[in-house]
Amino acid sequence: MKWEELDTYAKQWTKEAGERIRSSFSTTLDITTKSSPNDLVTNMDRDIEKFFIEKIREHFPQHKIFGEEGFGDTLNDLNGVVWIIDPIDGTMNFIHQQRNFAISVGIYENGIGQIGIIYDVVHDELYYARKGQGAYINGEPVPKLKETNISEAIVGLNAIWATENKRIDYTKIVPLVQDVRGTRSYGSAALELVYVATGRIDAYISMRLAPWDFAAGIILVQELGGIATNIEGKELNLMEKSSVFVAKPHLHQQILSNYLLK
Amino acid sequence: MKWEELDTYAKQWTKEAGERIRSSFSTTLDITTKSSPNDLVTNMDRDIEKFFIEKIREHFPQHKIFGEEGFGDTLNDLNGVVWIIDPIDGTMNFIHQQRNFAISVGIYENGIGQIGIIYDVVHDELYYARKGQGAYINGEPVPKLKETNISEAIVGLNAIWATENKRIDYTKIVPLVQDVRGTRSYGSAALELVYVATGRIDAYISMRLAPWDFAAGIILVQELGGIATNIEGKELNLMEKSSVFVAKPHLHQQILSNYLLK
Repeated sequence: MKWEELDTYAKQWTKEAGERIRSSFSTTLDITTKSSPNDLVTNMDRDIEKFFIEKIREHFPQHKIFGEEGFGDTLNDLNGVVWIIDPIDGTMNFIHQQRNFAISVGIYENGIGQIGIIYDVVHDELYYARKGQGAYINGEPVPKLKETNISEAIVGLNAIWATENKRIDYTKIVPLVQDVRGTRSYGSAALELVYVATGRIDAYISMRLAPWDFAAGIILVQELGGIATNIEGKELNLMEKSSVFVAKPHLHQQILSNYLLK
Repeated sequence: MKWEELDTYAKQWTKEAGERIRSSFSTTLDITTKSSPNDLVTNMDRDIEKFFIEKIREHFPQHKIFGEEGFGDTLNDLNGVVWIIDPIDGTMNFIHQQRNFAISVGIYENGIGQIGIIYDVVHDELYYARKGQGAYINGEPVPKLKETNISEAIVGLNAIWATENKRIDYTKIVPLVQDVRGTRSYGSAALELVYVATGRIDAYISMRLAPWDFAAGIILVQELGGIATNIEGKELNLMEKSSVFVAKPHLHQQILSNYLLK
């Protein structure tokens, strides 16, 4: 495997995809609804996924592709090199705001995250990590994470999880919301994971994400010293939907033992 | 009153203040704590407020100034021209993220909002409204708001208000969180008000803001056809801390009658 070449292409294609999205803002978006109003999808999602697939098939025909829009491969395992792609993470923001969405590209080899790329298209910020070789924002190195106590922590957490819901006993979440310094919710898992990786928020909790929502982000978080698990503290499974909980190590352990597993 | 001149200066000083903030990011921030960990304040807050006061005193000695850091005037009323300034709205974001904060400048004449300026410093986006003359982002006109139903609405609302708290009966907030399409929380009232004004979110609710947090934002919201009241649907008082609820007109009425006043 020529990782350098792969690296260069992955970043280049992501930037090109971002340029396509930016130039689309002047044209009317053709918005259709998939399964629910919460699952909006645009032609742009599909076009960007197809763009990646075409490029990957041409240059790396052995690689497998796992994407939100389903134009890639149907996977039974993570053997070999697998690209896990969300062409537009934060579709609702994309539609309502034309900002606060990202392209998310995670490249795994035999199940191990090797390259994570998250591109904040509108702000032209490319976040990139290569396993064991650090993480970067537009080429500038990002420092490792420093610890934060619960009472000083800002946690990415949507208000819905503090109300009765099907995914988690909300009485575990309510005291967490009340004990931390503050909560935020941006509506893009990829960006919220990048926010944890870069120390802008201290933890992020979501009850149900698909692999393409978190595949790239957890590589960034882990490369900078953060911990990524599900809300039970167990290893994330990249083959299925899952809860996701990322934080700095000590904070991760504190939130698990004092709230989520209490 | 020469409103054109006032207008030009207000925008110019806001941009200059933003430049000062951006250039501070390379220097270490001297952070002290005011009354609580939630009330962080930096030297930058104070410096920016003093910068505005100096400029206003020099050019408009008759004007009064009402600012978060308290270097302006002590007001007993809103007679005459009053500048209501938050030098850095979203101080916690400023410290943790170096983004998602704004300078907020509202100019009132005898209690009527005439000019609203909110400057997203890091993204160099200046939002500006002049009463009766439209609103602009970096000089580009912003279209008037279009209505959104509850089930399609994205609401700016912090998770804390969906848990037991001193400000509101949280059982009014929980069903709202569950009925809307989604909630967001950005940690800067000024930016959240601008998000409503520009249609990026459909409503914003906060239980306790100071006048400088919302003075500029409500001018922008109202100029684009939105409604700004407290959570009881009553007129906002710019002389005291207050809850704030802004939304598109029909949505405002729906949320009031079906949730907040139910």
